[in-house]
Amino acid sequence: MKLTDIYLHLRNDINKIEKEIERNIDADHPVLQMASSHLLKAGGKRIRPVFVLLSAQFGDYDLNEVKNIAVPLEMIHMASLVHDDVIDDAELRRGKKTIKSQWDNRVAMYTGDYIFARAIEIATHCKEPAVNSVLADAMVEMVLGEVEQIKDQFDPNQNLRMYLRRIKRKTALLIEVSCQLGALAANARLEYQKALSKYGYYVGMAFQITDDILDFVGTEKELGKPAGSDLIQGNVTLPAMYAMEKDPELKKMIIELLETNKGDISIIIEKIKESGAIKYSKKMSDRYLSKANQALTDLPDGHPKAALKQIANYIGDRKF
Amino acid sequence: MKLTDIYLHLRNDINKIEKEIERNIDADHPVLQMASSHLLKAGGKRIRPVFVLLSAQFGDYDLNEVKNIAVPLEMIHMASLVHDDVIDDAELRRGKKTIKSQWDNRVAMYTGDYIFARAIEIATHCKEPAVNSVLADAMVEMVLGEVEQIKDQFDPNQNLRMYLRRIKRKTALLIEVSCQLGALAANARLEYQKALSKYGYYVGMAFQITDDILDFVGTEKELGKPAGSDLIQGNVTLPAMYAMEKDPELKKMIIELLETNKGDISIIIEKIKESGAIKYSKKMSDRYLSKANQALTDLPDGHPKAALKQIANYIGDRKF
Repeated sequence: MKLTDIYLHLRNDINKIEKEIERNIDADHPVLQMASSHLLKAGGKRIRPVFVLLSAQFGDYDLNEVKNIAVPLEMIHMASLVHDDVIDDAELRRGKKTIKSQWDNRVAMYTGDYIFARAIEIATHCKEPAVNSVLADAMVEMVLGEVEQIKDQFDPNQNLRMYLRRIKRKTALLIEVSCQLGALAANARLEYQKALSKYGYYVGMAFQITDDILDFVGTEKELGKPAGSDLIQGNVTLPAMYAMEKDPELKKMIIELLETNKGDISIIIEKIKESGAIKYSKKMSDRYLSKANQALTDLPDGHPKAALKQIANYIGDRKF
Repeated sequence: MKLTDIYLHLRNDINKIEKEIERNIDADHPVLQMASSHLLKAGGKRIRPVFVLLSAQFGDYDLNEVKNIAVPLEMIHMASLVHDDVIDDAELRRGKKTIKSQWDNRVAMYTGDYIFARAIEIATHCKEPAVNSVLADAMVEMVLGEVEQIKDQFDPNQNLRMYLRRIKRKTALLIEVSCQLGALAANARLEYQKALSKYGYYVGMAFQITDDILDFVGTEKELGKPAGSDLIQGNVTLPAMYAMEKDPELKKMIIELLETNKGDISIIIEKIKESGAIKYSKKMSDRYLSKANQALTDLPDGHPKAALKQIANYIGDRKF
């Protein structure tokens, strides 16, 4: 089943959100348009707006109100992707120069800044003022996560706590807030808001762990980049961390890769698989998904709840 | 008279704002601390918080409330300075590598992102919800200004309208909003809010024009960088624009400098002075200051109004 089948009944509204996003990014400015066409072509499943709209269905659903949440949240996600593209000399040397990196760094940075600022501005149109502080708090945490990731880059000595905090900030938080604010903007009952927040957080954690698994087990064609890219870029994720603990030889190889950029990534990937790291990571992802589904039990039955459940299962089964 | 003498009676409150800024930038994080110590050492006159506090004096002045404006506005200014430091390969080639640019671009970018996000978050603590949208609108415009400046960089064919719009977004807007929100947060009468907004806008325009003049007439010691740096970096400001129109030979020299990075900047600066450009620009700055003082006439007499008047005059007389 495709993801888009799950929320078919919301398809019209999602299309309207899509048009709003395009309208808001396309600032009728040549510099920004270059960035925005790149972003919009990249597509993306618009999963965050989907969470917003589904969560809003647990209150008084009004697209005109809830779009002031859905549009900003996707734009914040896009802006973070744009900033992620800004590269350092160090990364150029590590061979990270991509088509995207031909952009001037300043263009990429200010494009991201623009999209962030517009997102915040749109959210101020919400009737519910509490939205602004929830959103701002989340953005502070997200940026802290990026800053932390700079510090942790190429560091082989990471622990589970560091990893979980990083992916919480990087991925889970925005999905949690998508659910929370969708419900808040629709004046859903407080216990529904809480249940949806929890669901969003757990699903977000599972989503990122699955992404981190796929980076090792996927093919270049599926990933759109070489397998093992995370590690090559110095990003030590859960499968690598587990494998290093189980296999001291592999740990040496990975440390060498991180410190010198030398090593055979396909051998490293094979050894990571052999260590049981993929099974272990999948198990952790499944535990988060199980908690996500548990959080849904506090919600009334119906289409929206069923869709959220299906999305959680889809994330768990995701190959690509 | 020093600027700090003008608002001596607010000195305690300004110190408290300073401490709040330090506390909020210093995220207890090694990566951010590097950036923040650089920012805080750079000092700065904290002129935006001064405008906030003075404007708040026209309503019900409460430092606990108005700090939620003063602190963010200065942080937004700081964050924009940090982002301004992010450089492109092109700028490295033009010899722009400074001590600051030894930072990783990503560190600078995410540090700026963090400060922006914290600023927005602090502002959400204001009792007056309208603050959020005024602030967000201003940030959108500011970023648009930066984006525009990228497009205009090294372009010799600029007109006055482009220049004025650019400096409005780059400088005047944040000062206008400092005045507006200081008054708004203190529940000042609407006509006072409007008068202060106008004052802030005009003073901001004069401030930037004066800065642009000083870039040509100041010494390296006074400026902290070589004279004519704006032009060398491809930023065509009012004195250069005027001089190019008056002196076709000079225009050729400036175009050559912009296009090839070749030319004798001291000869160019001399010719700019000879063209009457400095006088012309000073006259324009004075016109804005005169409008700023005019806007003050709608305000009740007293310490705060006198201070605002003195600040306007200080800006006009500014050598350094």
